[in-house]
Amino acid sequence: MTTSPYPIVRLTPKADARAVRHGFPWVYANELVLDRRTRNLEAGTLAVLEDSNRTAMGIVALNPASKIICRMLDPQPDATIDEKWFAARITRALAHRTRLFPDPFYRLIHAEADGLPGVIVDRFGDVAVVQPNAAWADVLIDTLVAALVAVTGVTTVILNGTGRARSLEGLAERTDVVFGNAPTGPIPVPMNGAIYMADVLGGQKTGLFFDQRPNHAFAAGLSRDARVLDVFSHVGGFGLAALAQGAASVLAVDGSAPALALAEDGAKAMGVADRFSTRKGDAFDVLSALGDEGAMFDVVICDPPAFAPSRKALDAGLRAYERVARLAAPLVAENGYLGLCSCSHAADLTKFRNASARGIGRAGRRGQIIHTGFAGPDHPLMPHLAESGYLKSVFFRL
Amino acid sequence: MTTSPYPIVRLTPKADARAVRHGFPWVYANELVLDRRTRNLEAGTLAVLEDSNRTAMGIVALNPASKIICRMLDPQPDATIDEKWFAARITRALAHRTRLFPDPFYRLIHAEADGLPGVIVDRFGDVAVVQPNAAWADVLIDTLVAALVAVTGVTTVILNGTGRARSLEGLAERTDVVFGNAPTGPIPVPMNGAIYMADVLGGQKTGLFFDQRPNHAFAAGLSRDARVLDVFSHVGGFGLAALAQGAASVLAVDGSAPALALAEDGAKAMGVADRFSTRKGDAFDVLSALGDEGAMFDVVICDPPAFAPSRKALDAGLRAYERVARLAAPLVAENGYLGLCSCSHAADLTKFRNASARGIGRAGRRGQIIHTGFAGPDHPLMPHLAESGYLKSVFFRL
Repeated sequence: MTTSPYPIVRLTPKADARAVRHGFPWVYANELVLDRRTRNLEAGTLAVLEDSNRTAMGIVALNPASKIICRMLDPQPDATIDEKWFAARITRALAHRTRLFPDPFYRLIHAEADGLPGVIVDRFGDVAVVQPNAAWADVLIDTLVAALVAVTGVTTVILNGTGRARSLEGLAERTDVVFGNAPTGPIPVPMNGAIYMADVLGGQKTGLFFDQRPNHAFAAGLSRDARVLDVFSHVGGFGLAALAQGAASVLAVDGSAPALALAEDGAKAMGVADRFSTRKGDAFDVLSALGDEGAMFDVVICDPPAFAPSRKALDAGLRAYERVARLAAPLVAENGYLGLCSCSHAADLTKFRNASARGIGRAGRRGQIIHTGFAGPDHPLMPHLAESGYLKSVFFRL
Repeated sequence: MTTSPYPIVRLTPKADARAVRHGFPWVYANELVLDRRTRNLEAGTLAVLEDSNRTAMGIVALNPASKIICRMLDPQPDATIDEKWFAARITRALAHRTRLFPDPFYRLIHAEADGLPGVIVDRFGDVAVVQPNAAWADVLIDTLVAALVAVTGVTTVILNGTGRARSLEGLAERTDVVFGNAPTGPIPVPMNGAIYMADVLGGQKTGLFFDQRPNHAFAAGLSRDARVLDVFSHVGGFGLAALAQGAASVLAVDGSAPALALAEDGAKAMGVADRFSTRKGDAFDVLSALGDEGAMFDVVICDPPAFAPSRKALDAGLRAYERVARLAAPLVAENGYLGLCSCSHAADLTKFRNASARGIGRAGRRGQIIHTGFAGPDHPLMPHLAESGYLKSVFFRL
């Protein structure tokens, strides 16, 4: 008998109750008894999950509209999901980031692995940007924000409700300042010795990609006195880090004029604008054009958007990664470096590495792999979902 | 018609000539025409490799006693493998390490990926330690050493002919000073802010493991003010790096008294001996004993020898990795970190990670994966052999 205030939902006899007991955080729609009562529960309802023998397994968040029908919030069936509960999880997550980084700029909450399924929080000093990518977090957003403010002391919280993850949950798009005042302009973010300008209201995702931090650092370590090409640069992730480590010059290529303007602002803030230039355009076109011009760089980095966001898109995605490698390799000087990144869930490391090596080969070059990196340590993974680590970064020496 | 001075060996029609043409560096024994002439060639003989249509594919080193019967030295069939040839490859490898590291302490040659199949060279300032783990390098050792001295300016070259790789090639054990004078004692090696004492004549492998450098750095970054346990410490790899980054205390555990003595010498040279202690013994026994004592650490690292060096040893090896995790997890404070390493070829990342997570689970703990690291960038890999990356290091937060 559970005394929980939450309704009960139940696994089917065929569901993998053992996996859930061992920490797997999800229940799929075909594993849950879908009687009329359960089907009628609103997206975001909290419930007690029971196994088919009616033993309580924990508190879950339900979304009948999602393939992931339950997300485990707490294996304690008598837990209450209140502000104190959120505060405990945020406190634990904060302790890790404080140990990792000298400045308060990081991914503070990385969803399941930080105990808040589907919730992303990026921190930019006094500003937090929340992505509630699961229905339960939409429902409890006020409690979440209150705990976030109490624990971290941030003075502004922005809710960024955009992106593919929300549409999979059947959630509407929505972007708001939900606490404090909107920042008056881009926020300068110190990272790896560089300064990045993050547009937390109008930018892509939460305004800056913290996940590439260690890969930026690795590339920057190769870049002293080097001519660097940063393709798909966004606000200058790889390029500005390279300049901070003494790159001779950086050319940033991106399709977005606002992103390149922010990159230029970052270079100005660092006092390195004289070594920084940009080229707006489709990356494939610009890579081809640079090849035609006979341009040559010591370090080339390509960090494209997810070409293979889903399994269906895998083959086309891998061909796109191969094409990036094929177009980029001729621009790398002999004994220079080529860093290729993928943020595609569907393309695993082996597939991505092979596509990249194939592209390099088709360009008539050979390369050794000198480094393989993933997302930084403020992006923890549950061991059960470790295969899902989306970000890979492979560095070749040509 | 080739004008090479070397004899000709030939692929069978069934051999994968395309792979070799695309850069795969090996020919297996069942892919080569083994007529009496070829069988009678001495181990280490250089030869011109032809495909089954008699088209020359490059210069290979032959070893009829090895499963890897040919190693590709140069895809140019008219190449001459002389001192100039060695010097070109060593120069190329050196340029990469000079870019990577401020001090001349690194793996200079990492076998196939650095163009010298089967050859390992570690550099300790003015001293180089060569492991010629393929027959051809034994034969040409004088030429190799001459080029090494000419390119790098090292004043001592030690030949370390021990280890499993040589026995697979049918080579005898042999350790010698082949150039200059033997060092009079352990060599102090600066790495990640620590000082390690490398016994390049009497120590394990080449005296120090450079491959863990980035993983040492990652662990050290977690270790400020922390109580650190370094299990299978050898000369103090993780522990001394942690002390350099401000660890409160380090306990190093190893089965080798000479290794622990070198670790203590390192701690003394760093001026941190008061925060460093050692415990000699079987690591499993010591982990159990520490558990019984209720010892508790903020950061625990286990970097055991290869428990699964071959496919045959895989199951037993994975059980040993699981056991390490199970015994280590109880020693990690709440919200502390557990770093687990494997240098087993046969245990791939997924298998090793799963074994580790299982061990943590059996200890009644749960962990998030915060970092996955491999060997450092002075250990390049050929893309064709990338799956063979032996070193994995997975960090959990418990």
